[in-house]
Amino acid sequence: MSDTLIERLRGGELPVELERAAEGEPLDAAEIAARIVEGTVVFPLNKAKQLERACAVGGGLRTKVNANVGTSGDVADIEMERAKLEAAVAAGADAVMDLSTGGDIDAVRRDIVSRSIVPVGTVPIYQAAIESQERHGNIVAMEPDEMFEAVERHMKDGVDFVTVHCGVTRKAIDALMRTGRIADIVSRGGAFLSGWILYNDKENPFYEGFDRMLELAREYEVTLSLGDGFRPGAVRDATDAAQVQELITLGELVQRCRDADVQAMVEGPGHVPLDQVVENVRLAKDICRGAPFYVLGPLVTDVAPGYDHIVAGIGGALAGASGADFLCYVTPSEHLGLPEIEDVREGVIVTRIAAHAADLAKNRDFFMGWDDEMSRARKALDWDRQLELALDPVKARATRERCGAGIVDEPACTMCGEFCAMKFIASYLGTEERLC
Amino acid sequence: MSDTLIERLRGGELPVELERAAEGEPLDAAEIAARIVEGTVVFPLNKAKQLERACAVGGGLRTKVNANVGTSGDVADIEMERAKLEAAVAAGADAVMDLSTGGDIDAVRRDIVSRSIVPVGTVPIYQAAIESQERHGNIVAMEPDEMFEAVERHMKDGVDFVTVHCGVTRKAIDALMRTGRIADIVSRGGAFLSGWILYNDKENPFYEGFDRMLELAREYEVTLSLGDGFRPGAVRDATDAAQVQELITLGELVQRCRDADVQAMVEGPGHVPLDQVVENVRLAKDICRGAPFYVLGPLVTDVAPGYDHIVAGIGGALAGASGADFLCYVTPSEHLGLPEIEDVREGVIVTRIAAHAADLAKNRDFFMGWDDEMSRARKALDWDRQLELALDPVKARATRERCGAGIVDEPACTMCGEFCAMKFIASYLGTEERLC
Repeated sequence: MSDTLIERLRGGELPVELERAAEGEPLDAAEIAARIVEGTVVFPLNKAKQLERACAVGGGLRTKVNANVGTSGDVADIEMERAKLEAAVAAGADAVMDLSTGGDIDAVRRDIVSRSIVPVGTVPIYQAAIESQERHGNIVAMEPDEMFEAVERHMKDGVDFVTVHCGVTRKAIDALMRTGRIADIVSRGGAFLSGWILYNDKENPFYEGFDRMLELAREYEVTLSLGDGFRPGAVRDATDAAQVQELITLGELVQRCRDADVQAMVEGPGHVPLDQVVENVRLAKDICRGAPFYVLGPLVTDVAPGYDHIVAGIGGALAGASGADFLCYVTPSEHLGLPEIEDVREGVIVTRIAAHAADLAKNRDFFMGWDDEMSRARKALDWDRQLELALDPVKARATRERCGAGIVDEPACTMCGEFCAMKFIASYLGTEERLC
Repeated sequence: MSDTLIERLRGGELPVELERAAEGEPLDAAEIAARIVEGTVVFPLNKAKQLERACAVGGGLRTKVNANVGTSGDVADIEMERAKLEAAVAAGADAVMDLSTGGDIDAVRRDIVSRSIVPVGTVPIYQAAIESQERHGNIVAMEPDEMFEAVERHMKDGVDFVTVHCGVTRKAIDALMRTGRIADIVSRGGAFLSGWILYNDKENPFYEGFDRMLELAREYEVTLSLGDGFRPGAVRDATDAAQVQELITLGELVQRCRDADVQAMVEGPGHVPLDQVVENVRLAKDICRGAPFYVLGPLVTDVAPGYDHIVAGIGGALAGASGADFLCYVTPSEHLGLPEIEDVREGVIVTRIAAHAADLAKNRDFFMGWDDEMSRARKALDWDRQLELALDPVKARATRERCGAGIVDEPACTMCGEFCAMKFIASYLGTEERLC
């Protein structure tokens, strides 16, 4: 078997993909390579593939954004998923996950993998569960071999990272049943595997057979994203024994990945009240010895369906500022239905805002130049430049045109009109030369 | 002159309006009264008025949300402002500020004051400046008497709180000119008064004549909102000498308000990177000895025009969680133009999300019941109840209908379809009885 990326980097290789991925990062390729070797950064890239926009994820780097696409049993349209992929990448997603659970799952995944210019992740247990339902009439009748076969099929198809819920163990289920929760288990992988464990009265095959998982990851050079099957699905359930019990196991598995020269990141919550976000990130980073941390949200309240992209943006910004490296987007349709294309776009943009806010907090010197340019354009009342610099130029322009009521050629905006503070004060402060 | 509210409360009175305002608060009316007396809570209510939805603002209470309405020179339509007031209140704003600078400013304000069921604030210096422009051909030619006359006119008309930029002093301007900024001064009140000070080479009449301000506030029972004329307008400018110099002055003025039994709150930034939000709130609370803190945003990045309501929601949630008591909304049109009705609605909803996220962090025991109910409805797959409990039921329902693709009667949602984690796991955990 050929060497893994970590082994090659340790041997002094510096792949050109990594050089390219270092562009726009605070660290250079050699520094990123050193962190991949120590396990605090991952570079998800299947060895069977090249990617136009590969990216490294982890400590010291720009906070990355993932967008989920994929069919469900109710809505399975490959054209729609292609369009979502395109919308996500166009809006600036750094990675996508195909979470398909409906239609021809293999075909959708292969299509996404072949088209995506950014890394693609999947959750193979979904497909194993669905096929078990079809084959055996029941999800809990899945054979361990079938689970691993699904993982290998995804890896063979070229996915760059897989979520595997290896930390869903009897011990964590015991903790869950002991303390109780409002929302029980909301992760599908977590639910399928917990059901399997309880029904079969056996330990999780992905935990017991973790060596097999490591071999697969080595063979295909796929990054393991250690899933959080017990991520809280209600703010009340956050940071409980089940969640932390699983996290302890994930820390153990991170070490086993490092020992096997396999790249690993760790997934985290979920629904978490704002005052627990920082502690959640620090706990994960400490227990998992600095492994890249990939959060879904966190959603800081349960009460705002229709706005959960914003709820997650609040939590994600603070999580990122506290050390989370990778933000999974949430869309406006979260908790309500499968996202449509506009949801995908909106979700990516808002998550990018959260990621950038986090980056300003993490590394102001490196990332604040963009904000400085915008503020200079704003002070100058240079509207073309402001719209050009906007994170979403299309929306910024549309909003200005909408609220400008046909008078967008004025130097100020319709909010303050002639009584623009910045224009007014310039002559008194002697900063007129900065106006357009 | 009759006693101020603080004096009446100290004498043991407990107005019925305060009893009503205590509903839904963690503190009862007597506890709120005690905090008003000590100056850590304000109850903005002009003595000439009654209000259907008066509210107390400050430590220990629900985080409040303000919505700005008002004309500009370019867009001055009283009907539009009425509609914005209505939209803001319907969306759940706790207060509104009329920031009109165009058309018949007196008429708009009187109309808003007469119609509003929530407290109304204004910034009288805007009108003083505009009238000076009309009368003297120049803003900086304003007479101090004209400034105070504008304040009194607003108070007489029944406004409940006024923003007065009394902390804009020579010392703060010196600090600004010494350190420099990208965006100089972005507060209109701050700009007008700084220009006045520099042009006339005199101290700010609102600072020098602060006793006169106190007399007016006492006479009409109007809460002083001590404005932050040097709030940063670029994340790079945050927490600089000018801003903190002004804050020190505001702390001094808070004490003078307390000595005069006048209610005071303190306004804060502005554009602030995420890692400086907590320190900004704590600094303001410490320097101003626990006075209620009213923030505009904070906006945690400059680069996302069109989404500044979300950018402010991120900063506002963290500010609120750290102790800010009152969040001024920001709308999607911020930095681009005067908000329209849909911007007002969206701005209020997003700011309420931020405020609620903050409240969960501040006082979980009191505020998390709503989230618990939502999570129980979610676990039960009780869609009617979820939509009913949603912070914005209209948007939640519309999103579900849009993404439900005509199949919204199903027990699960189109995201997971039959593979719903919560439904699946219930039978194995023995929690089926919680399903609908």
